Amino acid sequence: MTKSILVTGGARSGKSAIAERLALDLGPCPIYIATAEAHDEEMAARIAAHQARRGSEWTTYSAPLELVEALGATDGTGPRLVDCLTLWLSNMMLAGQDWQTGAQLLADALGRQTAPVILVTNEVGAGIVPENALARAFRDAAGLLNQSVAAVSQEVYLAVAGIPMKMK
Amino acid sequence: MTKSILVTGGARSGKSAIAERLALDLGPCPIYIATAEAHDEEMAARIAAHQARRGSEWTTYSAPLELVEALGATDGTGPRLVDCLTLWLSNMMLAGQDWQTGAQLLADALGRQTAPVILVTNEVGAGIVPENALARAFRDAAGLLNQSVAAVSQEVYLAVAGIPMKMK
Amino acid sequence: MTKSILVTGGARSGKSAIAERLALDLGPCPIYIATAEAHDEEMAARIAAHQARRGSEWTTYSAPLELVEALGATDGTGPRLVDCLTLWLSNMMLAGQDWQTGAQLLADALGRQTAPVILVTNEVGAGIVPENALARAFRDAAGLLNQSVAAVSQEVYLAVAGIPMKMK
Repeated sequence: MTKSILVTGGARSGKSAIAERLALDLGPCPIYIATAEAHDEEMAARIAAHQARRGSEWTTYSAPLELVEALGATDGTGPRLVDCLTLWLSNMMLAGQDWQTGAQLLADALGRQTAPVILVTNEVGAGIVPENALARAFRDAAGLLNQSVAAVSQEVYLAVAGIPMKMK
Repeated sequence: MTKSILVTGGARSGKSAIAERLALDLGPCPIYIATAEAHDEEMAARIAAHQARRGSEWTTYSAPLELVEALGATDGTGPRLVDCLTLWLSNMMLAGQDWQTGAQLLADALGRQTAPVILVTNEVGAGIVPENALARAFRDAAGLLNQSVAAVSQEVYLAVAGIPMKMK
Repeated sequence: MTKSILVTGGARSGKSAIAERLALDLGPCPIYIATAEAHDEEMAARIAAHQARRGSEWTTYSAPLELVEALGATDGTGPRLVDCLTLWLSNMMLAGQDWQTGAQLLADALGRQTAPVILVTNEVGAGIVPENALARAFRDAAGLLNQSVAAVSQEVYLAVAGIPMKMK
């Protein structure tokens, strides 16, 4: 039986490492679907560190915007790890795309998969209310996207200090 | 037996929807005690979205500051949903009121209720330390208010991605 | 058998009070290892409030930077409470020290202790991404330090609204 698993948590809470272990537990030939693009040195360094940690058994697939299409194209083989939804949302908003439609299409697509999907996302709404309106809009959208994916996932984990806490 | 239930979580973590379901489970004729005031369009839109989600069985009661009085006035009928404590705190601070006295009066009032009360609040202290002193004072006050209400509540839930995690 | 316990949570989530109770449960003659320095009035007031809450049975030991040395010097007597790791990290970064080496030395030292150690730390990564690079670097470092200490701890708690949730 197929499944979707959502792993959420704050920055540097160990989400990606937890999600990688969950993916490897689900079968061989894991596929890494990256939503990050190396726009600056800080991001390039973070991407390189993530790649170095993953082993050579991983196939990498880049999908800064076409996440739904990437899920369709990679289905039927190994488990997929999507890292991460928050960057995908950010990419959609920067590209002027309708993220609410994107979120709905993603939820629909997850229901159609035959191979499992692990999705990494971020908790961004537990700080003080941001002063600028764009940051407020982004954290609202991120929270709603997380709810939408959690609702169709069979398992949801909250990562804190590298430890996964099962919520669903 | 009467009870108080606290539902906390980050922005857009699904707190209000979780609290509404908890309230409806506790009996008919639910009363919505709103602490929000529509000072700007963004807030007006959020209030309208919340109202549209709630059904016509709800009675709405406005209490931007007089929360303790509102609990007294609505006691004995259906379950009450207070949404939310963080805005009530903000309203008290903006009005120059002593929020610590307010927090104590609220904790005392919760112990006197005969009909149940569900209270929604926000996690605002899990981001980086804010640069401005007022924001730091607010997040300190919000954390202390949450502790005070959690201490006298029979149940406490943390909402993450729309999922309630029972803490108490 | 000796143990390390990590207590994490947002600002004003009740972490310190929870950690103090855990320390007192572990034996008499508790030692408070403070990493805070009173650089300004706001911090001095917070330190004073913490000291007032703790009883006279506590011995206080100041270690803004020399945390590993303080653990060595206080071992073998009562339980130690380190409050907090986030300030220790901040002190190391401000002093231009290599915090990654510090984190490794701390993890090693925790494994050598004969008396128990309770460590308090902060969740700082669940808000919106900070605009300034130093804040981003700090929250990354704080998250990695938390993961490192959690990995060698026998128990880890997340504090929310004054309630400890056991994660490990």
